[in-house]
Amino acid sequence: MTRTNLPVNPDRLWQDLMALAEITEPDKRYTRRSFTPMFLQGRNWLRARFEAAGLETRIDTAGNLIGRRSGAKPGMGTIMVGSHSDTVPSGGRFDGTAGLLAGLEVARALQETGHELDHDFEIIDCLAEEVSAFGISCVGSRAVAGILTEDMLAYEGPGGECLADAIVRMGGDPTRLAEAKRSDIAAFLELHIEQGPVLEAEHIDIGIVETIAGITRLELTISGRADHAGTTPFDLRSDALLGAARAILAAETIAREVATSNEGYFVATTGEIHAEPNAANVVPSRVRLITDARAERRSTMESFVGRIKAEMPSLVVASGVELSGVVVLSDALPAHGNAGLCDALAGAAEELGLTHRGMTSGAGHDAAHFSRIAPAAMVFTPCRDGRSHCPEEWAEPGEIAAGAATIFNAVLAIDRAQATR
Amino acid sequence: MTRTNLPVNPDRLWQDLMALAEITEPDKRYTRRSFTPMFLQGRNWLRARFEAAGLETRIDTAGNLIGRRSGAKPGMGTIMVGSHSDTVPSGGRFDGTAGLLAGLEVARALQETGHELDHDFEIIDCLAEEVSAFGISCVGSRAVAGILTEDMLAYEGPGGECLADAIVRMGGDPTRLAEAKRSDIAAFLELHIEQGPVLEAEHIDIGIVETIAGITRLELTISGRADHAGTTPFDLRSDALLGAARAILAAETIAREVATSNEGYFVATTGEIHAEPNAANVVPSRVRLITDARAERRSTMESFVGRIKAEMPSLVVASGVELSGVVVLSDALPAHGNAGLCDALAGAAEELGLTHRGMTSGAGHDAAHFSRIAPAAMVFTPCRDGRSHCPEEWAEPGEIAAGAATIFNAVLAIDRAQATR
Repeated sequence: MTRTNLPVNPDRLWQDLMALAEITEPDKRYTRRSFTPMFLQGRNWLRARFEAAGLETRIDTAGNLIGRRSGAKPGMGTIMVGSHSDTVPSGGRFDGTAGLLAGLEVARALQETGHELDHDFEIIDCLAEEVSAFGISCVGSRAVAGILTEDMLAYEGPGGECLADAIVRMGGDPTRLAEAKRSDIAAFLELHIEQGPVLEAEHIDIGIVETIAGITRLELTISGRADHAGTTPFDLRSDALLGAARAILAAETIAREVATSNEGYFVATTGEIHAEPNAANVVPSRVRLITDARAERRSTMESFVGRIKAEMPSLVVASGVELSGVVVLSDALPAHGNAGLCDALAGAAEELGLTHRGMTSGAGHDAAHFSRIAPAAMVFTPCRDGRSHCPEEWAEPGEIAAGAATIFNAVLAIDRAQATR
Repeated sequence: MTRTNLPVNPDRLWQDLMALAEITEPDKRYTRRSFTPMFLQGRNWLRARFEAAGLETRIDTAGNLIGRRSGAKPGMGTIMVGSHSDTVPSGGRFDGTAGLLAGLEVARALQETGHELDHDFEIIDCLAEEVSAFGISCVGSRAVAGILTEDMLAYEGPGGECLADAIVRMGGDPTRLAEAKRSDIAAFLELHIEQGPVLEAEHIDIGIVETIAGITRLELTISGRADHAGTTPFDLRSDALLGAARAILAAETIAREVATSNEGYFVATTGEIHAEPNAANVVPSRVRLITDARAERRSTMESFVGRIKAEMPSLVVASGVELSGVVVLSDALPAHGNAGLCDALAGAAEELGLTHRGMTSGAGHDAAHFSRIAPAAMVFTPCRDGRSHCPEEWAEPGEIAAGAATIFNAVLAIDRAQATR
């Protein structure tokens, strides 16, 4: 797909993406983790680009970077476009930045095409969307939604620094955190690479995210007994790692059954394992597993968690060990795209001759937090092989430009529609 | 079992054991790890006790603490008794120290009963029997056997210190390491708590170790692919942790089958697991497992390793991942107790009216290294519930005294027998 009649400049957008990607830890491409000096270097570059596009820039009290262009009719509210500029360690060049720089390109295109919006228009670089060293994701968008709590501000990161102090380093002021909460957002739009294989496989230009899956994280603790690995006969052991192995396989079996017997998107993954004492010559005494589940429908998630709690204890007992705990570490409900905004995005794609489909996002996004306080919707664009959170992450210039153009047309449509209401 | 007619003093031996146990990291009982200040504090206490028993003490070039009493006939060689004074983190009060302080009690009993041996007599506190921060066990006894290599001396520990420098801190001189190698040992005897449940279960006083099991450690690496845990459908994943779970269970099944279809002691344990990236929201890309196997007979070990190499690849492929490596990390052959010394120990136990049986040690011991260069044998004494390497490790005063008395009588018998040869 190559289009030359887009309302945005694909080359300029691509050059921005590649320039921001170059601001990376040199030995660990592509890394620009939130709260690091490298992140601030990226922010400085962004701020200069925002200002060059004629935007008035500021850091809100939660540490979000915002570029603003006032609208013609004060009090209409703000149309926001944004995403995030931080990365995971050894991440990619598109996750977050594609949506943020698409927002910047939309701002430039509005200016260049002489469109004056009735609404105020803002682009936002949400602070710390990825899980940072403070163990929490979406710091900035949680604050905008008013759900960044005092408890979270006290989370400790490297060297014992608390999150609140780290936000101060980013230019925020957590003592006035309430000022970051917004009630003026008329629409929030976020472009993001899909981070999955669907659009590429189906040769579709634009995904319109109808649901962002709920995310529930379970911690399973399996308890056995530490014994000398050389001297303890098999029948006298209580080996927690054997129980954990059964639990890992059973969690996958249950997850696949839940996925096939319920409608809507569902996946689950046991991605973390911590064994104690984790020494070659000692029978493992304790294993903690973290299982991450994503469901489009709450009922599906409840079915999965219910089966884990009901079936796991007897499964691990078969290895002579005990399931000593199932703890719900976090439990986020599914978030839904605003129907009117989804329609506007679909209409915008059609105006541009782009193919589109509705989708569920298995990944969490800043848009999920915005959706709690404002109409919000997301555009997905294709990425190669569905790869993300890795240096191989890739998207084509035309694919991202098509998404940015869809956002541009949708912004105009939303501005007009709300103005005439 | 309480005996009052033993040739050693049970109370004095017990008081020594409890006194040395009190030299521990205060917040982590019972911890006296090799190369630490606490270990040196224990060594200072030991040295004073050795000297009080009339022994001439020295540190050899490998950092072993040696107490010596010269024999009547120079050139007969040395009868050595010993073990180690270092502990694992949060270890027990008997592992190592029981054999070392039994040796000290034997030295005192020889002096008090006026026995003059023809042989020289030494007690030895072998340096760093437990795996230390330098990643290697039996440092001191390897040096005595002449198999502590230059490579090992270069192993790095905390702060980048090499093992050679750490040995210097212990009073050794690795530049003259060859001087620690011994060719004068007529017999090496080691008492140790069983660290297993057999003697207690069978109500037997003394185990005579006929074989120290061979220890082979395998590293299995399972490779999948890192993908976003929220966006990657089940059928497009290659989850290394699922393959690892199958491998853990299969290794145990194979090990149990090998144990039942071969004669002699055999156990295997997967005690270490390292998953990458070990993050809740990423499909695991790589898992390393370390499987530790102990076999009385080499043929049994070869059967186990052969089956792991043959059967594992297809087992993990069932999870859509690959067994990318099976590496033999270490491979120690079984060591055998000297038949003459084992007979002497059995005779000594019988003289004392103690019950005894032959055994295989699943644990490695300093005696295994001594057996490479000299006649060596071990006595096991019972311990509660087979527990070891934990603060709950426990043995009764009379049990250890019975073992020390067996060593005492055996030393006399060996001295007489070799003198008359």
